[in-house]
Amino acid sequence: MYQDPAFSRSNPHVAIPSATATSMPPSIAPLRVGLLGLGTVGLGTYTVLRRNADLIAMRTGQAIEVVAVAVRNTARAQALLAPEVTLLSDPFALVDLPEVDVVVEVLGGTTVAKDLVLRAIANGKHVVTANKALLAEHGNALFAAAQAQGVVLAYEGAVAVSIPIIKALREGLSANRIEWLAGIINGTSNFILSAMRTQGVSFAQALADAQAQGFAEADPTLDVEGGDAAHKLALLASNAFGTPLQFAQVHTQGITQLTGEDIDYAARLGYQVKLLGIAKRNEQGLELRVQPCLLPQDHLLAQVHGSMNAVMVKSDAAGLTMYYGAGAGSEQTASAVIADLVDLCRSARLPAPLRVPYLGIQASALKPLPVCNTGHAQSRFYVRFNIGAHTYSPTELLAQCHAAGLPKVELHSFSDKGEQLAVVLLTQALSPNALDAALAALRQVGAVRGAVHTLRLETLQ
Amino acid sequence: MYQDPAFSRSNPHVAIPSATATSMPPSIAPLRVGLLGLGTVGLGTYTVLRRNADLIAMRTGQAIEVVAVAVRNTARAQALLAPEVTLLSDPFALVDLPEVDVVVEVLGGTTVAKDLVLRAIANGKHVVTANKALLAEHGNALFAAAQAQGVVLAYEGAVAVSIPIIKALREGLSANRIEWLAGIINGTSNFILSAMRTQGVSFAQALADAQAQGFAEADPTLDVEGGDAAHKLALLASNAFGTPLQFAQVHTQGITQLTGEDIDYAARLGYQVKLLGIAKRNEQGLELRVQPCLLPQDHLLAQVHGSMNAVMVKSDAAGLTMYYGAGAGSEQTASAVIADLVDLCRSARLPAPLRVPYLGIQASALKPLPVCNTGHAQSRFYVRFNIGAHTYSPTELLAQCHAAGLPKVELHSFSDKGEQLAVVLLTQALSPNALDAALAALRQVGAVRGAVHTLRLETLQ
Repeated sequence: MYQDPAFSRSNPHVAIPSATATSMPPSIAPLRVGLLGLGTVGLGTYTVLRRNADLIAMRTGQAIEVVAVAVRNTARAQALLAPEVTLLSDPFALVDLPEVDVVVEVLGGTTVAKDLVLRAIANGKHVVTANKALLAEHGNALFAAAQAQGVVLAYEGAVAVSIPIIKALREGLSANRIEWLAGIINGTSNFILSAMRTQGVSFAQALADAQAQGFAEADPTLDVEGGDAAHKLALLASNAFGTPLQFAQVHTQGITQLTGEDIDYAARLGYQVKLLGIAKRNEQGLELRVQPCLLPQDHLLAQVHGSMNAVMVKSDAAGLTMYYGAGAGSEQTASAVIADLVDLCRSARLPAPLRVPYLGIQASALKPLPVCNTGHAQSRFYVRFNIGAHTYSPTELLAQCHAAGLPKVELHSFSDKGEQLAVVLLTQALSPNALDAALAALRQVGAVRGAVHTLRLETLQ
Repeated sequence: MYQDPAFSRSNPHVAIPSATATSMPPSIAPLRVGLLGLGTVGLGTYTVLRRNADLIAMRTGQAIEVVAVAVRNTARAQALLAPEVTLLSDPFALVDLPEVDVVVEVLGGTTVAKDLVLRAIANGKHVVTANKALLAEHGNALFAAAQAQGVVLAYEGAVAVSIPIIKALREGLSANRIEWLAGIINGTSNFILSAMRTQGVSFAQALADAQAQGFAEADPTLDVEGGDAAHKLALLASNAFGTPLQFAQVHTQGITQLTGEDIDYAARLGYQVKLLGIAKRNEQGLELRVQPCLLPQDHLLAQVHGSMNAVMVKSDAAGLTMYYGAGAGSEQTASAVIADLVDLCRSARLPAPLRVPYLGIQASALKPLPVCNTGHAQSRFYVRFNIGAHTYSPTELLAQCHAAGLPKVELHSFSDKGEQLAVVLLTQALSPNALDAALAALRQVGAVRGAVHTLRLETLQ
């Protein structure tokens, strides 16, 4: 293998000796990678593949080499790549290269990327991608195409960056029926929520800080409105429950409407507000939802701070397991992309029916589950609203709540805000529909005025 | 597949349809398992394999069937097993059965188990084991034998019960150079430490409670003296750092000498005491140690309570990742044993050099690392001792500490205990050897008397 001195980082932690001709099976040719894109993830993948080439080969039994890169700005790329790497400005030319065994798609976007992946598949090439939007939106078609061609389409880097959660669901927990999974799967949102809580800043300020520190994009919509988490949740849920991707049915709510006031009240009640992606079997089918929730302060997911990610899984044999790691980053994502390449060295040699299935179970057994209207999914709720200062005493308000269908409500705040009182309630477990009905009844008797802020309270045990 | 009604547990969370003749590739015969032992883990494995048989086949592309069980008390076993399972009282007869593809060793012990595993290997059978003592002590020989015969020897269930940590190290993090790993890898000890902290009970009382609740064995030595954690640490370290097993060199200290006083002082200083297994590269080689340590209260590992386990890994590309799950249990361990069987359905069909290597890297590249005398491994330390009530003022004691080689010591307690004062210090980072020298100097000037309690303080970032 060619070793570019620019990429051989001196590292005192290098424990593993270099690959040598004698230690590598000489008959196994390298896996040849074509890289679509040399942005954050692409460059990270190239860098780690080269820096740790010997170690990766020793783990894999086969070397992995980037033989071609397609990138718009070839001049910039030329300075970053070893001279023997074929550099192309046309990504479609890359997926046609006969010397490429596997295409790594880290371009982003869902249009050109889809065409490229389909063409790579049609050319009989395996594909590794970290593109969650592409898979959430077009995954069913892409997996069907890959299945028809007998190629692998792997995507560990698309879900929770460095965390090997797809591997855990499909392989580590293969003995288990999954009951639910819940994850903090958007690093930007978690960074913002952590800042709002610990620094007492507003959403807007926390977002601006996150942007300044590189933890949020210039256009943060996909992160803070929950879309990115919904992409990932769709992939997680299919692997957990044996369904085709059901992205369009993920109930998605972001964090842009959250106020520091709610985060403060939650903290005083012993809870943290986290943007959770939750997939849960219930008697009607499947709950698929991304929304900010209250989580008990001592829950392990409540200890996941800043831009970190974590996914907790409840299953019948293993019980509770959790997987934690970086929610963003170049080499962090590369770690997952390369793990897929290492797996590919093995799975490419297996008969297709014995490979790890694209969505965790054999394609012929995938079956959509009815995604229940989350209006029916029960939980406790946090409710905050204002009422006029002299409308009701606490006892009278509780009586009105009981009458309105909230028999076990807890009144946690009843604080003076001048003309108004700020009321904070924790309800018993009920459906959002039942909560809405109760709030409408309270509004009718003047016990609720103006905006009502509600958040689900999850215990996740 | 035969379905024993006794094992088809009704489960509202069953999302995945049954395997059918059409959905299973008809050409792939079931993987035939011979089970050595029907104790906690053996029965759990049998139960989960049968309960989730359809799901497992859908995930695997191949059915997995227990065809034979060897157990001392065949009468008891007969009542538990389906009639078509061959029941043997001689385990050596089981490993000779031609119809067994893979032997699952869940007997425990290191003598007979070793002979059985070697004979199974000699017979060309793959082996899955959850026996950490067997592997820690004889793993190098067993892996060599397996390599010579070209069979798989898998052991996910031997390390952290349900947590797929061996898979994470060998596959999920295959792109990474590991810098360190640290784990809470003994459920019994963690249960006892959690009880001492939250209930304020002594070690003896917490142990008795753990025994009463089934979280500690009648003979708890292996758990509370750190031996079990050392077995697991040896396996984790080899997979992380590409070394043969170096179990004999694990520095091992249990929790039997810990007092409630130290746990209380630690809590007041913002730390928890956890029994950690730590493997870390340093400039001299490798630290391999199991010992109770102070860990900052807000560290994620400090949130791992009761009998739960977790392993945190620091690596060059992925950064920090953590893996959390049950540290004990029948089906929890079965989950890992079955995951190994599922993997085997695939890896058995690969050329041996392309299988996931036994210890994470190709056997030819394994290389022992010097395990450094932990007397040289630096960290901050918690130090507690008593001095006479009127020997030194706090200022004088600090001056003595500075003179004795502890220039940045923090004096955190100086509390009256009648004739004596209880002193609690946190030192700067130094080696245990340097600490011992400083304490000897302090003893000489009468600034230390009687027993000194020291604990490492780990930050693990």
